[in-house]
Amino acid sequence: MSVAKSASLTLEEFLKLPETKPASIYIDGEISQKPMPKTRHSRLQAKLINGINEVTEERQIAYAFPELRCTFGGRSIVPDVAVIRWQQIEFNDNGEPVDDVLIAPNWTIEILSPDQSSNRVTSNILHCLKYGCQLGWLIDTDDRSVLVFQPHQQPEFCHKADRLAVLDGIDLELTVEQVFGWLKMKAE
Amino acid sequence: MSVAKSASLTLEEFLKLPETKPASIYIDGEISQKPMPKTRHSRLQAKLINGINEVTEERQIAYAFPELRCTFGGRSIVPDVAVIRWQQIEFNDNGEPVDDVLIAPNWTIEILSPDQSSNRVTSNILHCLKYGCQLGWLIDTDDRSVLVFQPHQQPEFCHKADRLAVLDGIDLELTVEQVFGWLKMKAE
Repeated sequence: MSVAKSASLTLEEFLKLPETKPASIYIDGEISQKPMPKTRHSRLQAKLINGINEVTEERQIAYAFPELRCTFGGRSIVPDVAVIRWQQIEFNDNGEPVDDVLIAPNWTIEILSPDQSSNRVTSNILHCLKYGCQLGWLIDTDDRSVLVFQPHQQPEFCHKADRLAVLDGIDLELTVEQVFGWLKMKAE
Repeated sequence: MSVAKSASLTLEEFLKLPETKPASIYIDGEISQKPMPKTRHSRLQAKLINGINEVTEERQIAYAFPELRCTFGGRSIVPDVAVIRWQQIEFNDNGEPVDDVLIAPNWTIEILSPDQSSNRVTSNILHCLKYGCQLGWLIDTDDRSVLVFQPHQQPEFCHKADRLAVLDGIDLELTVEQVFGWLKMKAE
């Protein structure tokens, strides 16, 4: 997301472009591309997706999507993990989720990549909160810490044994240590 | 500030150590060193110091200090710019400011360095706000943006022509564009 180029495109025109890899996002007329995820980023994303869906999918509470495009409030963003409450997921007649998500996720999780602008990522979390999102996590792998954002509140810095706030109604107990413990893939 | 080492030192013991360059900071028993400032960081720091003191020193409203060690609430930190209201600056009999500052600055400004953990820097801004600081800026040079922190509020993302909140009582009008305009040192 570091390379931003000025676009004369409207949001509607942007949405008609083919998807890129990594995903492109649209903010205030500017198009930029998310950074290519590194291995640790990818690992945390996978474990978060899995850990959340394990307790939310069967009971149809919510679903955690990786790299889901969410377009609302004049921006089109792609959080690393977007958790949407089940009743807010739009399904087609086949019971499949529809492609265009036009709401903010209920819980947005961003994992900072090296060289990614943290202010810009934070601004996307704040944008989500402004449009109905209830929870944002900003994960800083190098610092082994998570900034937790909730509406109308100062963010909370969490590290070590701090227990992380999760979306209301999701039965998940996680400390910061547990999250970063997921990075360890090989026993000594 | 990226290289943190575990310390068995207490805050009191830490404060007796000789100063390092860049400065070392003490957070929750951990000692780490600020990153070596790069040229753009240094330039912004100088212009901010100058711009603030130009309107605050003569009328004895406040003073903006670069790299001032502030020790309070169990941490000893060194903001890039620490603005302290004049009446809160402690002077000795010679009218010189005393060396040990044991309060939070009234306005703390941090300029992100490449490879510096943004969460850790944010946590220092939040620590200041918790101990009486009224304003925090987190400057992201690559993103040309500033996150503005105020007590009990969500941070505000400012860029382009957004006018930046300054400490109450300081007569300074600054937009984000003006701040980053300072980076340009040579006319084309």
